Order: sequence, then structure tokens, then C-alpha cells
Amino acid sequence: MTNLKRPWTKYPYFEEDTSADVVLARMGPDTDARLAQVMTSAVRHLHAFVKEVRPTHAEWLTAIKFLTETGHMCTDWRQEYILLSDTLGVTMLIDAINHSHGDGATENTILGPFYVENPPHRPNGFNICLDGKGEPLSIRGRVLDTDGNPVAGATVDAWQTNDEGFYDVQQKGIQPDMNLRGVFTTDDAGAYWFQTAKPRYYPIPFDGPVGQLLRAMKRGPNRAAHIHFIVKAPGYEDVITHVFPPDCPYLEMDAVFGVKETLIGDFRKVDGGWALDWDFTLARAA
Amino acid sequence: MTNLKRPWTKYPYFEEDTSADVVLARMGPDTDARLAQVMTSAVRHLHAFVKEVRPTHAEWLTAIKFLTETGHMCTDWRQEYILLSDTLGVTMLIDAINHSHGDGATENTILGPFYVENPPHRPNGFNICLDGKGEPLSIRGRVLDTDGNPVAGATVDAWQTNDEGFYDVQQKGIQPDMNLRGVFTTDDAGAYWFQTAKPRYYPIPFDGPVGQLLRAMKRGPNRAAHIHFIVKAPGYEDVITHVFPPDCPYLEMDAVFGVKETLIGDFRKVDGGWALDWDFTLARAA
Repeated sequence: MTNLKRPWTKYPYFEEDTSADVVLARMGPDTDARLAQVMTSAVRHLHAFVKEVRPTHAEWLTAIKFLTETGHMCTDWRQEYILLSDTLGVTMLIDAINHSHGDGATENTILGPFYVENPPHRPNGFNICLDGKGEPLSIRGRVLDTDGNPVAGATVDAWQTNDEGFYDVQQKGIQPDMNLRGVFTTDDAGAYWFQTAKPRYYPIPFDGPVGQLLRAMKRGPNRAAHIHFIVKAPGYEDVITHVFPPDCPYLEMDAVFGVKETLIGDFRKVDGGWALDWDFTLARAA
Repeated sequence: MTNLKRPWTKYPYFEEDTSADVVLARMGPDTDARLAQVMTSAVRHLHAFVKEVRPTHAEWLTAIKFLTETGHMCTDWRQEYILLSDTLGVTMLIDAINHSHGDGATENTILGPFYVENPPHRPNGFNICLDGKGEPLSIRGRVLDTDGNPVAGATVDAWQTNDEGFYDVQQKGIQPDMNLRGVFTTDDAGAYWFQTAKPRYYPIPFDGPVGQLLRAMKRGPNRAAHIHFIVKAPGYEDVITHVFPPDCPYLEMDAVFGVKETLIGDFRKVDGGWALDWDFTLARAA
């Protein structure tokens, strides 16, 4: 074999041992600093992963097909890559990184895909279960600051599934529009209260590549039952959170890792249904 | 806030510090062992990457959109995820992992997307440049074993671009079918020889999300000029490789990291064109 040694090489040629360095050496010096930081970390971890698992060519092609099919599954109304992020715990990690108050404020959890813009404002005491189905649930509580003082005029924006595990937007024509959604405003004592129905667990979309991966990992598709809340008040950090009933069989196996111990509520059986006292604590805006 | 401590928890709830462990704890004990190994490494590196770069919610959404658009760009004739793998050096790394002979055999490099099944078998001496365009190139060499003995009856399957950087399949109706493709068989002395044209560098598809990422990293799209080869003989490992002319301006900046020092040939200027002596060394099959 006749080779020509090239003494004028500026960029290193590919070598297995230095593979990530070879790739990163190509980034131009005027690359945006944040992009360079992200890609440096991404390429280093990607190459380290490949060297750890040493995929065969067929395994590499399986990964290419999985990523391609996950993209093809995405439409205006289905986001399979967010589902992948959710089920691998990445969405919760992004949430934790961006919302760690560490000061006694109510913990965040993920927003999820079922929030609807411009939900109806309702007076305290209103029953947001517009079709009267399911087990009635009374919720009341206060919005507090981290010193325990009431926050008046805070908004408590709630949304949830019905007793069969469906959001209104998943059952158009079956559930009334804006069923089980409503925004409440706290009174001078920081209190809010409303009527609803007990939510039920439900499966994430399980018919795509992410569902196949979960099945292969012997994992289930169910999200633990929960009520979503966004709580806001001027001068405070917003909190996006859930409350979970403690009797849901999927608390420990929530498919998207949304459950936190501090977000499990003491749902009490009462005459004619259930009751929950549930306070929120807001951190002052930075 | 009223919480209910759950002493019966089997699976841990999500915590930032232990996030990868929480996700991996969910894998069922009867998960395929290889899948469990791959996902364990993937989830650990993915979470470590997120913790290193601490993406904002907007940056996370940018990543989701990039992955989605890369999937949407894939069709039967365009594989943007393979292009992403190529340009991040992963394809070359997979190749290195699966083809490191370390015994003096000719080095592998990537197959690329332009191989065509059932190329024409040609007699030694045949000119595969069917339209006579470009600078003529004579190639001759031998196929050897790692002890330097000739391998008779080996096949040398070659394909390449024309002098404008296009493969025949990219210029149907402009180039003749099977232009610059041919399979040669070594004689009793292990020799092969054929006529062709000098290949030119060419850009990888640059109009999709991968092209955008390369531009953002201030990287160019060009592959260094090369001739592809697959060399096979009974009892030996196949080798998928290239030879590169030493005067190509993109040798050091090949967009897919395909260049290796040992694969740069000594192309000599001769009367009426170019000449190359190029031997292949095959490792015995395991």
C-alpha cells in the first residue's frame, strides 16, 4: 500500500481513541458560545455512550430507525419526542433544573400536553365538573408566601381528567367544553375553594415508537391520577404543579416520573364523596 | 400543605440528584439484557449531559424541534438521522468499533448512501468512466493477505463521483447508468487494474436541520474527493474503504470524518492524466 504522509495537517483525522476531540476540533472559533458548550457536552457523552455499549452495525441501524420513526410520529397534535423526553425522565429533570426554589415553596411538576389557553374564570365554590359524573370532590386551601402569610388575589388555575381518565379535549362531543377546568382567585385571607370530581389515572399515548420502547423495558403507560394547577400572583414565581390522590395504584409507577412525595394529598372520604385541603406556597420573584 | 407520607413506596420518586437511577429502577427484571445495558448507558449519559449544560425550557424545546424536524426530513431517499450520525462522527465510530483489525489490514471507512446493489462485473483494464469526462486515472494494485501473499479471485468493487462531484444516481439522464461503478476480480498474482476518472469533492445534503446545525457550528458540508471500494475474498474479512487523492482541499475537513491517513493515495501526474498504485490487505476471517 502506497501512502502519502501529509505533514501539513491542521485538523486531526479520525481515530477511535480521540473521536470526540476530532469532531469538536472542527467547530469554528466564532461558534456561538452557548451552542459550543452544549455541543461539546453532547458529542462527548454521545461518543462515550457508543464506546461503552459498542453497538453492532445492526444495532446502530435500529437506533437510526427508532429516531426516524419517533420523528415521523410527530404531528400538530402528537409530540412523540416530548413523550420520549417525558418517559426517560428528561422533562422532569429540565423542570427541576429550572424550578428548584429550595425554600419551602410548593414543588413544580410537568405541565403536560393538556393545558388549554384561556380557561374560564369561576367564582370560588363553583363546580367545574359540568356533567356531574364521577365521585364529587371538594377542594379548599390557601395560597401562602414562604413566611406563611396569605397571598390575596392569586390565581389558582386547575385542570384534570374525568373519572374515566379523559380530558375534555380528548372527548369533544362527549364531555362539555371546558369540563373540569377553571381559574379561581384567592380572597383576602388567601383562600380558594371549588367543587370537582375525583380524577383517574390514564395511559400516555402508547401506540408509537415510545410505547414500543416502554413495552420492551417492561414499563407501563399509566400516569398516576392527578389534578393540574398553575398558581400565580404578582411579585411571586409561578408554580406549575399537580396534586395526587394517595389511593392511585400508579403513584409509584407514573410513566413520566411526575410524582413527588410532597404533592400527594390527604384526600378524605366524606359524606357524598371526597374532600381535600390543599395549600400552595409561592416563592418571591427574584 | 397537607401531605401523606407513603411508607409502602417500592419505586423511588423523582429527585434531581438521583434522576437517572429513578428512571432505570423502573426497568422490569425480565427486560432483554442487551436492551437493559444500552438503555442504562443511554439514560445515564443523557441525564449527565442535561445536568452539565442545564438547559432552559426554551433550549429543551429547541432540541425537541430539532429532533422532530430531523425525523420529518427523512424519506425513502433521504436519511437525515444517518447524516446527523455521520456529521457527529458516530458513524465512523461505529465503523471503527466493528472493524478494528489492528493487524496491518486495510482500514475501513464508511459505506455512504451511494452504493448500488448488483454493480456490473468488468474485465481488468475496463474504463468505468462511460462518458469519458474528467481527467483520466489508471489504477492498479494487488489484494494481499496480512503476510503479504497475493489473494487470487478477490473482488474489488469500486464506485465514485464524476469530475463534477456527482454520482450517476444523482444525475439520471445526464450520466450513463452505472457510470463510474464496476467490480473487478484479481488474477493469479492477486492483481487488478482499471481505468476511471479522477473523483471530485462534493457537499453532503445541506438544506435540512443537519445543514443548519453544521452552519451554526461554522463547519462546511464537503466530503473530501474519494473512490469507494468493497474488497471481498473467501476466507477473509470484507473491507469497506476509500482511497483519497492527496491534493483535495477538503481532506482535513471531510464533513463525515471519513479520511484516514493510511487511505490517502499517491496519485501521480502522468502523460494524459493520473496514475495510482493501490494495494489492499485483507485480514483472515475469524
